[in-house]
Amino acid sequence: AWKGAPEVENNNGWTFKPRGRLQYDVGFTSVPAASGRVDGFGSELRRARLGVEGDIPGGFGYKMELDFAGGATEVTDAILSYQDKGLSVTVGQQNNFQGLEELTSSRFTSMMERAAFTDAFNFERRVGLALQYATGSILLQGGIFSDNYDDLSNKNWGLDGRAVILPKIGTTQLHLAGSLHYTALQELSTVRYRQRPLVHFTSDRFIDTGALDAESEIGYGLEAAAIHGPFHFASEGYWQHLTRPGALSDPTFFGGYTEIGMFLTPGDSRRYKKGVFDRAKPSSPVGNGGFGSVEVNLRYDYLDLTDAGIVGGTQNGYQLSLVWAPIDYVRFLLNYARLDYTDALHAIPGTSRDYSVDAIGARAQIDF
Amino acid sequence: AWKGAPEVENNNGWTFKPRGRLQYDVGFTSVPAASGRVDGFGSELRRARLGVEGDIPGGFGYKMELDFAGGATEVTDAILSYQDKGLSVTVGQQNNFQGLEELTSSRFTSMMERAAFTDAFNFERRVGLALQYATGSILLQGGIFSDNYDDLSNKNWGLDGRAVILPKIGTTQLHLAGSLHYTALQELSTVRYRQRPLVHFTSDRFIDTGALDAESEIGYGLEAAAIHGPFHFASEGYWQHLTRPGALSDPTFFGGYTEIGMFLTPGDSRRYKKGVFDRAKPSSPVGNGGFGSVEVNLRYDYLDLTDAGIVGGTQNGYQLSLVWAPIDYVRFLLNYARLDYTDALHAIPGTSRDYSVDAIGARAQIDF
Amino acid sequence: AWKGAPEVENNNGWTFKPRGRLQYDVGFTSVPAASGRVDGFGSELRRARLGVEGDIPGGFGYKMELDFAGGATEVTDAILSYQDKGLSVTVGQQNNFQGLEELTSSRFTSMMERAAFTDAFNFERRVGLALQYATGSILLQGGIFSDNYDDLSNKNWGLDGRAVILPKIGTTQLHLAGSLHYTALQELSTVRYRQRPLVHFTSDRFIDTGALDAESEIGYGLEAAAIHGPFHFASEGYWQHLTRPGALSDPTFFGGYTEIGMFLTPGDSRRYKKGVFDRAKPSSPVGNGGFGSVEVNLRYDYLDLTDAGIVGGTQNGYQLSLVWAPIDYVRFLLNYARLDYTDALHAIPGTSRDYSVDAIGARAQIDF
Repeated sequence: AWKGAPEVENNNGWTFKPRGRLQYDVGFTSVPAASGRVDGFGSELRRARLGVEGDIPGGFGYKMELDFAGGATEVTDAILSYQDKGLSVTVGQQNNFQGLEELTSSRFTSMMERAAFTDAFNFERRVGLALQYATGSILLQGGIFSDNYDDLSNKNWGLDGRAVILPKIGTTQLHLAGSLHYTALQELSTVRYRQRPLVHFTSDRFIDTGALDAESEIGYGLEAAAIHGPFHFASEGYWQHLTRPGALSDPTFFGGYTEIGMFLTPGDSRRYKKGVFDRAKPSSPVGNGGFGSVEVNLRYDYLDLTDAGIVGGTQNGYQLSLVWAPIDYVRFLLNYARLDYTDALHAIPGTSRDYSVDAIGARAQIDF
Repeated sequence: AWKGAPEVENNNGWTFKPRGRLQYDVGFTSVPAASGRVDGFGSELRRARLGVEGDIPGGFGYKMELDFAGGATEVTDAILSYQDKGLSVTVGQQNNFQGLEELTSSRFTSMMERAAFTDAFNFERRVGLALQYATGSILLQGGIFSDNYDDLSNKNWGLDGRAVILPKIGTTQLHLAGSLHYTALQELSTVRYRQRPLVHFTSDRFIDTGALDAESEIGYGLEAAAIHGPFHFASEGYWQHLTRPGALSDPTFFGGYTEIGMFLTPGDSRRYKKGVFDRAKPSSPVGNGGFGSVEVNLRYDYLDLTDAGIVGGTQNGYQLSLVWAPIDYVRFLLNYARLDYTDALHAIPGTSRDYSVDAIGARAQIDF
Repeated sequence: AWKGAPEVENNNGWTFKPRGRLQYDVGFTSVPAASGRVDGFGSELRRARLGVEGDIPGGFGYKMELDFAGGATEVTDAILSYQDKGLSVTVGQQNNFQGLEELTSSRFTSMMERAAFTDAFNFERRVGLALQYATGSILLQGGIFSDNYDDLSNKNWGLDGRAVILPKIGTTQLHLAGSLHYTALQELSTVRYRQRPLVHFTSDRFIDTGALDAESEIGYGLEAAAIHGPFHFASEGYWQHLTRPGALSDPTFFGGYTEIGMFLTPGDSRRYKKGVFDRAKPSSPVGNGGFGSVEVNLRYDYLDLTDAGIVGGTQNGYQLSLVWAPIDYVRFLLNYARLDYTDALHAIPGTSRDYSVDAIGARAQIDF
């Protein structure tokens, strides 16, 4: 079989497939000059991943992927799995069921970057033991996790669960889900919640709680989405409750987004699989006489990092993206965002901390 | 051919095979509270390796493997080879014939970690030129080496040799070997010999010489092993003699182990190939109506880092492991160790430096 | 198809091929003792690369390669491409058409290291958008670039162009080219031009401008080469003009080389493809009754880093190499260089800064 790269198989149940992705970003940010921050042109190798996945007879499997884009190599997914009908058990570094937006591959998101709350609340893969059970239009996921491999060995641990109902009503794919997350942090831990203005090639954040002494985190997520022909809708809300040591106040921060999108090219549609958005396949790809698929998406992206005496700031983001996929495994994105900040980190002297930042980004992407 | 991953071949003598391994560890350590060291839960991505190997017509070949588990990527084996009948020449980073335990792949060891002396004496791969000659039940190995690629370019160099006799007497595989090692260190070098209490996810060492000014090292190793049906036995001793500059004393440290093991599942046996333990293949794998193989191993692990006025401490270790391999390329280990230390690094105030540490570890492993 | 490693293809225009190279260097340098520099033995893992490349239907393609030889993993080529007849568009990190010597793969150069000016003027891959157009014996290349991925996101950007005429006159392959390069550096930038004495395993440089405040660079390159049967000739000159801020002088440095080479084994020849030297294929490889190919090369390598009041020193280098390729994908080099320096960085007390350094190096190489 060919899935971007060849999947080699033999008769005994063995498979092997290389995998990878390449994403380049370029663009501009515009920030109020009086804030003292540098803006303008930026560019970045956003992701450069290589990996492998395979099946081993008896129901076993593995996946290992590495990201070389940053200064240091980073292990992303690295799992051993066992599958028996609807039940799967997974050991290793993986996403801890944070929600639709985080669990959808960065190759298939509708904006260049995920909704603000996902990075802000430090969603990342963690080493753990996870169970998934799928039957009909129900998907149950849960696990026990320590931390990202790069932070181990430490004493952090957490429990995560997510329940999804994913009925197909006529030609409409629905998605409704809720998730619950508990993380116990080792002694003397701090957490910091913050987020960039959409594009990743800038290192400036305008919304930032600073480092907060922390004992544990509880997260609650709600998700709803639908796909109907060329149209899709998606929305999530996530509450992050922080327990701090001693007499310190315990804030609850909130982030969420609502988006709608549509394909302009006939016959094209967003796709969905196992509780996340999947690869869309242009019905008329380039090379086959077609032009590929074109998609427009609109998102409202909210993040509130101000609560219980902590003033991290609030973001009201408005984002517009245009996505051209000449063929399934090649994708170009153009993205505009206006971020309205309240109580931004960087003050404008003599006036206020309430101002706007604009960002324009473009991405070229290939995967296999 | 399929060896965990596909080995692609053509008619002219070319081959190509991807390779990799994934090991996750989790467990606990228990140390005397009065020692002031942190113990309890720990977890780690122990190894995450990807690589390739291949043959080139004319007798040439190569192997390159990388480990991504640590903070920085590490090149493990990276060699060019030439083979002509029993003789092979190997250029590049490789093990310098340190002994049975070190040369046996981490995928096939009987405990989660190798015997204490291997890490303690800083066994690691080095860049060099090696020759091997195999004939009947004799194997001769030798080479000239500089240092691990990550420490180059420096002026360290060494000579290493190992001779193995590996007769098969009836159904009993025997292994007897001796090795000799000389390393000249560049000016102003120091060495440090130390070791963790079995499990790698703790960073505490209780046996440690501290940094010692050093001019050269001479190592002598003796090895004996046998496999008979479900039973195996293995034992090694290694003397590390350190020459220090000027009037400083020249200590000789010693480490060694003795282990016995047996398979509880009928028809299973440890395997041996070319002077090291090889992959065991469960006779009734999962997915084929079987349960895989189950193996019990018992080891006494000794290390003495006290000599010639240097008091690095002594370890008497008692280790028990249970290994379940549902199929050849998947392996789960459960390991208990009790380490009795004399003159341990971390003193218990008001009393002595003689105490015990307990460690429990579990590993999930997949390779291809 | 097999090109060192298997190239997997399917009927729809998909291809996939792993790629890699391994280079080990060893050798000696000899420097005047009075310069206070350390010389003698050195060794190094010079390159350890792994990567993939592939075609995607519709004219798309990708290439990603990583180098693991240094302390940190480095992304080398990482591109998305589109090809339509003679025109190709490439997005991502790639060479910015610096010249014949830099663009020729390190697997196929005639000396162990490229001519002094290439490293000296900080040639490296940069992230950008490039176009190439090839028709008959004309090749046009140009692009807009930011910086190496590891230095992003910054505000550097540049424009590069190169024109090649590559007529084949009878059995003689000719190559004539010119290139032009402009790089605008972000505020408060510095550049440093310096070079090692041929071999890379030493970290001493004897020719070095030190850090220079810089606003922009303009480079001009001229290239000429020819292959006729077993003989080849190649020569390049490169002028690097530096614009410095304010009243600082604007120097123009120059480097270049001239080399001749010949194969001693009958039927062998250097090969050329698309504006660069390509893989030579021994006509009688080892394993096929032959001995492979043997090649001798002689080079004069000049670098002048002294101009406009900056005294970085001058190098007159004389280099001799012997290359043995038992088969296309395996290569051994023996290299001698004498470097005569004027105004060298490290003074010999009481005398002058004019002296010579000798270097001997050997390389073992495999690629696929």
